[in-house]
Amino acid sequence: MEQTNLYSITIPPMMKTLQNLSGILDKLSTHAAGKQLERHPAGMQEDALLQSRLISDQFPFFRQVQVACDNAKGGAARLVGIEAPKFEDNEKTVPELKARIDKTLAFMKTIKPEQIIGQEARKVSLPYWEGKEMTAFGYATEYLMPNFYFHIVTAYAILRKNGVGLGKMDYIGSLPFVK
Amino acid sequence: MEQTNLYSITIPPMMKTLQNLSGILDKLSTHAAGKQLERHPAGMQEDALLQSRLISDQFPFFRQVQVACDNAKGGAARLVGIEAPKFEDNEKTVPELKARIDKTLAFMKTIKPEQIIGQEARKVSLPYWEGKEMTAFGYATEYLMPNFYFHIVTAYAILRKNGVGLGKMDYIGSLPFVK
Repeated sequence: MEQTNLYSITIPPMMKTLQNLSGILDKLSTHAAGKQLERHPAGMQEDALLQSRLISDQFPFFRQVQVACDNAKGGAARLVGIEAPKFEDNEKTVPELKARIDKTLAFMKTIKPEQIIGQEARKVSLPYWEGKEMTAFGYATEYLMPNFYFHIVTAYAILRKNGVGLGKMDYIGSLPFVK
Repeated sequence: MEQTNLYSITIPPMMKTLQNLSGILDKLSTHAAGKQLERHPAGMQEDALLQSRLISDQFPFFRQVQVACDNAKGGAARLVGIEAPKFEDNEKTVPELKARIDKTLAFMKTIKPEQIIGQEARKVSLPYWEGKEMTAFGYATEYLMPNFYFHIVTAYAILRKNGVGLGKMDYIGSLPFVK
């Protein structure tokens, strides 16, 4: 029985989308390897794709991936009221970014539904909110989830703009059909 | 008292984000008007921004706005089990796109929480799913919301790439601080 609660609307959708992002990283590698084989002058090498951005004052692709992971693990931790593990922000390659996603997923798997279900009124704060607070519900629905998707879709947009062979379903992932 | 339910995690966040998108359209106009005044050769006119896209085989900005509206009104209707109003897809200007957002919001305001709360097990289908079905819960969390945010963030990315003065908080909107 599928139930709408503060756990089911946050942790499983973010975990699924991070897994989809890991698949998108595989497609980045496949694309770059193909361009390398073709010796196509317009083809971008893997590192160039990782460093690419939509405009000079926005984060590049690799940083969007790091931030999406931080949103997911930080969000999960804040909903529970615990500290999230800290990562070094030193990933420079596709395998390293995929490993960051795996570490994020491993942490999220340790969160039990009963640690989040019913915690709507918990006060949530972030360092850059300068002493301000939201409820866990307001945080989850008006910041955590839209902000998490923002960084994932921006990462997708950077690759799409650069010609990596992706479609929206790479971001959405498998659909939960019941018939 | 904030409660997590199938209404509160879908309709209010989509309505808020559509209002934010309307504000982003205002910034598009302001940007284009400024460039026009400057007679800046690199500055894009309003129509060029509306027609701009990240890559040739992806929807342009104006179509991303139309689709985001369709996701929101179609999603709301599907969660209730009613038909959504049909729009003509004939918007060509910023005021017309803002009017489409307003029409979408007007429809969504007619949906009452009790029409959606508790409907997790309702079967939901879409024409292009070829006879397949999801539960309303699976649809809301694994398709409707990530897909809605996808088109909004893609619209944002198109403008950001073209130098329109936007920041992430234009997309996120006001935060529900309680302290």
